[in-house]
Amino acid sequence: MNYKNNRWLLNKRPSGMPGNECWLLDKEIISDISKNEILIKVDYLSIDPYMRGRMNDSKSYAPPAKIGEPMTGETVGTVIESKSKKFNIGDKICAHKGWQTYIKVSDKDISLYKIENHEIPIHAYLGAVGMPGRTAYFGLNYVGKPKKGETLVVSAASGAVGSVVGQLGKHNGLKVIGIAGGEMKCDYVKNELGFDECIDYKSPDFKDALTSSCDNGIDIYFENVGGITTQLIAPLLNKGARVPICGYISKYNSPNIIEEETPFHVLGKLNPAPKHRFFVNTEWMNEWDAVTNELSQLVLEDKLRFKETITEGFENAPQGLRDVLSGKNFGKQLIKV
Amino acid sequence: MNYKNNRWLLNKRPSGMPGNECWLLDKEIISDISKNEILIKVDYLSIDPYMRGRMNDSKSYAPPAKIGEPMTGETVGTVIESKSKKFNIGDKICAHKGWQTYIKVSDKDISLYKIENHEIPIHAYLGAVGMPGRTAYFGLNYVGKPKKGETLVVSAASGAVGSVVGQLGKHNGLKVIGIAGGEMKCDYVKNELGFDECIDYKSPDFKDALTSSCDNGIDIYFENVGGITTQLIAPLLNKGARVPICGYISKYNSPNIIEEETPFHVLGKLNPAPKHRFFVNTEWMNEWDAVTNELSQLVLEDKLRFKETITEGFENAPQGLRDVLSGKNFGKQLIKV
Repeated sequence: MNYKNNRWLLNKRPSGMPGNECWLLDKEIISDISKNEILIKVDYLSIDPYMRGRMNDSKSYAPPAKIGEPMTGETVGTVIESKSKKFNIGDKICAHKGWQTYIKVSDKDISLYKIENHEIPIHAYLGAVGMPGRTAYFGLNYVGKPKKGETLVVSAASGAVGSVVGQLGKHNGLKVIGIAGGEMKCDYVKNELGFDECIDYKSPDFKDALTSSCDNGIDIYFENVGGITTQLIAPLLNKGARVPICGYISKYNSPNIIEEETPFHVLGKLNPAPKHRFFVNTEWMNEWDAVTNELSQLVLEDKLRFKETITEGFENAPQGLRDVLSGKNFGKQLIKV
Repeated sequence: MNYKNNRWLLNKRPSGMPGNECWLLDKEIISDISKNEILIKVDYLSIDPYMRGRMNDSKSYAPPAKIGEPMTGETVGTVIESKSKKFNIGDKICAHKGWQTYIKVSDKDISLYKIENHEIPIHAYLGAVGMPGRTAYFGLNYVGKPKKGETLVVSAASGAVGSVVGQLGKHNGLKVIGIAGGEMKCDYVKNELGFDECIDYKSPDFKDALTSSCDNGIDIYFENVGGITTQLIAPLLNKGARVPICGYISKYNSPNIIEEETPFHVLGKLNPAPKHRFFVNTEWMNEWDAVTNELSQLVLEDKLRFKETITEGFENAPQGLRDVLSGKNFGKQLIKV
C-alpha cells in the first residue's frame, strides 16, 4: 500500500522570527518498505525552542537542518508496517526524523526509542519523560549539583524543561523559585507543580519580588532565558553558585543582541564568577534510558506533573514554533497530526 | 586631523566556505574624538576559526556579527589620539571591535586591554598570550583537570590554541601527543614545542600511529577538530577520561554533517562516556588578567613558544580566514595592516 507523506521541508534560513516562507509543505508517496525497515504513522510532533537554532546554517553542538529536507524535530507514533525483527506493528516509537506524517526508516536508526511503559500517555515521551525531561535532569543534577536546603531559581518555569527542573529540585530538598510570564502560569507553577514561589517577569515589581523571595541569595540558577532576567539574577548569586545554561530563549530571534547581554558575559564578569556553563543532553547519552525510566516512574507516582498545549493539525507546526519562541504556549507544545 | 578608516563589513551570511561576496570593503572618514575617547591605529588583526561561527545569524554563546557592520575580530594597535585619562598616546591596546584599520572608541569599552609588558611582541597578545592562549589554559586546566603522568592528546596541535595546550600539558607532567596535518607541522610540534609525539592525520597510517602512541590509552582529549579524528580517538579513551571541546573546525563549513558525526554524539554514546563538554573562555572572564600574566611570563622564560603566519595587507583578511578554516596557515594567523 502507498501512503501519502506530508512533510514540512526547510525552505529558507530565517533572520529573526521565522515566517511561513521558511518552510514548504510537501507531499510524497512513500515506497514499500524493504527488509529491516519499518513504517511509522506519526501521532504527535514535538515543538521545542532549540529548533530555531537548527534552522541556521551554523556551527553548534548539533548540525543544522538542511534546506529541502524535513525540519528537525522529534515525533512519537505507531508502527503500521514492519519488516524488522526489532519492531512489531502496533509498537509506539519515538523518532528524531523531522516534521513528517509518516516515517519510513531502518530499524538500525539510532534515534528510534521504543516505548515499553504504556501507563502514561505516549506524548509525555516528547516532554517530561523525553528530551526536555532528560535535559532538566542532567542540567540540574550534573551541572547544578544541588545540596539540600539550597535555593534554586528556574526561568521559563512553566515550560517543558523548567517545570521538570523545579519539581526535581523540590524532591531534592531545595527551596525552589520559578520565573514565568503572567499570573496564570505563575499560579500553575506554584499551586500545581509545588514550587515555593513563582514570580511574574511581566509584573512591574519583578525585581523586588525576586529579591525578597531569594532572601538567602541564589545557589543554583537554571538559565533558560537570558536578557534582563540574567542581569537581575547576577547580583543575587551566592559565592559558589552554579548556573547550568540550557539556552537563552529571549535572544533566539534577536538580530540586535550585544555581547554584554549574553549570560556568559553577564556571569563571567562577576567576581567571584559562578560556575556557569552551557550543557546539552547528549553529554550523557549513555544514561538516557535510565533517566527516562526514572522520570516515567515519577510521573506514575504523581511526583512529576506536566502541562501540554496540544494544537491539532500538522499544518500548524510553523505557528507552533513561533508560539513557543514568543511564550504563547502554556507548558509543552505539541502538534497532533 | 581626519583619518581614513578601512573596514571589512559583513555583507552576506555564508553557506559553507565564505566567499568574497560575504564582505564589503568600505572606507569612512573618522570624525574627531570626543571627551573620554581614544583613536587607535590598528597594527594587526587576529584571524581565528571561531569567526566563521559569528558570520551566521544564530544562537550561540556569543551574538552574531551584524550585516553592514565590521566583521567580528580582535586587533592590537597603538593609541594615536587621546582625550582619555586612562590611555595615553603610544599605548599598545588590544580591542575587540572588528576588522578595521582605525578604532575610535570610548575608554569605557570593556573590550580594551592595555599591554603593560613590552618585552614580548604585541601580536602575541592576539595568540599565545591572548584569547587563544587563555582558551587553551582554561580548557586544559578547568575542564581537562590534568593529573601528572596522564596522557593528553591535542588535535590541531600546531594551531594557536593547540600549541599552547600541549606545552602547558608538558609543564604539568603529562605525556602529550599532538595531531596535525603534514610532516612540517608535525616536526615543529615535536621538535620545537616539545610534545612527546605528533601524528600526521593526512598519513595513511594515522590510525595505527595514534593507537601505538597511546599505549596507555588517553586520559584527556582536547577537541579542536571533530569528524574522523574523534571517531578514532573514542575507543582509546580511558575510564574517567575528560574531553574539553573547544570547537570542531573540520565541520564549520560543512553543509552535510550528520548528527552521528558530532563529537557530542560520538562521545556521548560511549559507555562509560568520558566527561566531555563544550566550553568558552568567557566562563572565566574574571581570571583573564591573571592568566594573561601567567602566559606572558612563560613566553619570557622561553617555556611557551608560538609560531605565526603573518599576511601583509588589510585587504587579505577574508582569504586569511579561509586559510585558517582549511588548515593552510601554520600557527597563529595574523594580518599586518
